[in-house]
Amino acid sequence: MQRVGSLSARPGVISFASGILDPTQSPHLKLEQAVVRALSRPAWQLLEDSPTEGWQELREEIARRLAGRGCDKLSARCVLIVSGSQQGIYLVAQLLLRPGDAVLVENPTYLGALEVFYRLGARIIGIPVDAEGMQVEAAQRALAGGQVRLIYVNPNYHNPTGTTMPTERRLRLLELARRYQVPILEDDLYGELSFEGAPPPSIRALDQGGYVVYLGGLSPLLGPGLRLGWLVVPRALVPAVVAMRKSIDLHHSNLLQAVALELLRDGSLDAHIRWLRHACAARRDEMLAELSRLQPLGLQAGVPGGGLHIWCSLPEGCADQELLEEAAPLGVTFMPGQLFFVDGSSQGFIRLNFAAPGPGQIPEGVRRLGEALRALQAKAVGAEEQAGRPLI
Amino acid sequence: MQRVGSLSARPGVISFASGILDPTQSPHLKLEQAVVRALSRPAWQLLEDSPTEGWQELREEIARRLAGRGCDKLSARCVLIVSGSQQGIYLVAQLLLRPGDAVLVENPTYLGALEVFYRLGARIIGIPVDAEGMQVEAAQRALAGGQVRLIYVNPNYHNPTGTTMPTERRLRLLELARRYQVPILEDDLYGELSFEGAPPPSIRALDQGGYVVYLGGLSPLLGPGLRLGWLVVPRALVPAVVAMRKSIDLHHSNLLQAVALELLRDGSLDAHIRWLRHACAARRDEMLAELSRLQPLGLQAGVPGGGLHIWCSLPEGCADQELLEEAAPLGVTFMPGQLFFVDGSSQGFIRLNFAAPGPGQIPEGVRRLGEALRALQAKAVGAEEQAGRPLI
Repeated sequence: MQRVGSLSARPGVISFASGILDPTQSPHLKLEQAVVRALSRPAWQLLEDSPTEGWQELREEIARRLAGRGCDKLSARCVLIVSGSQQGIYLVAQLLLRPGDAVLVENPTYLGALEVFYRLGARIIGIPVDAEGMQVEAAQRALAGGQVRLIYVNPNYHNPTGTTMPTERRLRLLELARRYQVPILEDDLYGELSFEGAPPPSIRALDQGGYVVYLGGLSPLLGPGLRLGWLVVPRALVPAVVAMRKSIDLHHSNLLQAVALELLRDGSLDAHIRWLRHACAARRDEMLAELSRLQPLGLQAGVPGGGLHIWCSLPEGCADQELLEEAAPLGVTFMPGQLFFVDGSSQGFIRLNFAAPGPGQIPEGVRRLGEALRALQAKAVGAEEQAGRPLI
Repeated sequence: MQRVGSLSARPGVISFASGILDPTQSPHLKLEQAVVRALSRPAWQLLEDSPTEGWQELREEIARRLAGRGCDKLSARCVLIVSGSQQGIYLVAQLLLRPGDAVLVENPTYLGALEVFYRLGARIIGIPVDAEGMQVEAAQRALAGGQVRLIYVNPNYHNPTGTTMPTERRLRLLELARRYQVPILEDDLYGELSFEGAPPPSIRALDQGGYVVYLGGLSPLLGPGLRLGWLVVPRALVPAVVAMRKSIDLHHSNLLQAVALELLRDGSLDAHIRWLRHACAARRDEMLAELSRLQPLGLQAGVPGGGLHIWCSLPEGCADQELLEEAAPLGVTFMPGQLFFVDGSSQGFIRLNFAAPGPGQIPEGVRRLGEALRALQAKAVGAEEQAGRPLI
């Protein structure tokens, strides 16, 4: 990942590696006004210590927002403000996992979650992903094996594969959670970034039994620099999560909570999200159209219904890291798929971010990618011919 | 501690439990202007992701600031921005301590640090504190016992005892760190809040060998609600701390870093600190004068050279928690000293915060405290008499 960063930093390089659509291009997002309105509060409100759980009014605002997305009986008492989705994953993992405990994840999955689970010494069991997300039959076999303490799942516009889990499969996963008494950590960071209508109800919304911890945040909508997310936890788990958070950093910044509250309340965030969906969908479509030209080379692109990423399978014999080393000097970078796999063994995929590239970058970047693919394939053929040639 | 909170929340109660001098009373602190100036940056700077280490310009500003306090060869590369001192303690403990490892702490010490060490399953060894802070002879005996992996120390205006460690003792502690190869975590949260000239050089400033992790932050100066602190770590430890932080919450908010940079750069923070020192010293003096009236009852108050707290020893036979239960209905609360002790065994102390009470609250609060002391002593005498009286 560091390698991708240093390759992408070179001048002239088009990066499909990561990022979001620059929110400052949005005609709706008025960050400055929101901050200034947040400042109209008495200064002591911004400076005094505040509850580890988060500001009550912000928790209520988020509970209302999630109610609008199907979590209709949600109490604000179950909503906890965190510094972002990464902290949410960290808190839940610290609380529920001990070294040696098993955690089920989609394979591939979000790198930052793998990092947390590795650090904790958890046994990470990667469950294959198909067009409908985590394969629940494989999940069931792993659960039957015992010692699984957590299921981490990203059902909407999955990072990195872009897949979305249908309702039916969400219900089956919930049923497994109930049967094996294993909580689900539902990472819904991309759920609001939908291109073709709302995604299916969240697993949290379908949950009747308190098996789901739900995770959301502002990063894909506003940029990761602001820092604010939320955890929705079953009532019984609230005190333990709060005590853990207190030990880590006491509570979140009041200023950031005040700003988030302004953005959520004044409707500007919702207008921005509507704009963002159209703008991101257009970029996805543009990238898919460009990528279709690479089909004859054997590159297959998935079609995400939202989110930020297109997941591509590479032609046989073409490895992701080799393609990156070929592509970077030609001026394009991306994430090698291998990074997202639990065992790092699959080399046949790349992840392309379509949201961050600027105007005109998508066609040119994909053209360079095609050039790199051709060059790598030519090398492979050359090497084969060489291997077949007599030694003297 | 929850008990103290609920007792303090009752209407009319004067709380000496915790808090800082309300920074909005300061004629120098212009938080709103600082935030507005921070907003004059391009919005994408506030929204994009940023290095886990912190903004380079902020790290440089803090390195310069610490250079002015004796750390003259400090590289900004060793300065890491954290969400506050609590996160700093958490990161260092997570990195350096494994379950069963021993950590040396002053006994009594900061509650939030004890909480972190307990959670990690560390063996906490409390070293007695005298008028010059942690007793290094006792520390040496503990170090000689082996398996100590960290020394946590708060040498300036120690929380809760208010003591300051002289240079000589700092040097001896450093020598012990070198001899036993055990790092020191120096918590200097209160170092700038000095009433009688600057405190001795920090242990970090005296360190030649890279044995010290140094911790500072804005909370006692600006209030805990903003959230920003800094860790200064030996060069070799930087990558590990950064990786740990990344796993916990990626990086700190750009907006908060921009605001901190404005406050540090424009001189308003320094002017505010000068004002704060005088204002806090006046409150300390007022509280000490009032407390001297309770000397005949057997209450002895320490004289802190800075910080926020006066540590008092209670008359013999008078227990801190009982005094709190007696005092709360009379309208005054404080922190029972027992909470700060590793083993919770010492009941003969209370911690009084002199910075947070509003105008007129100090004399009245101390009067109520005296009333509670007298009532408790009368009860004790009554109980003794009853115990001595024949049963029939």
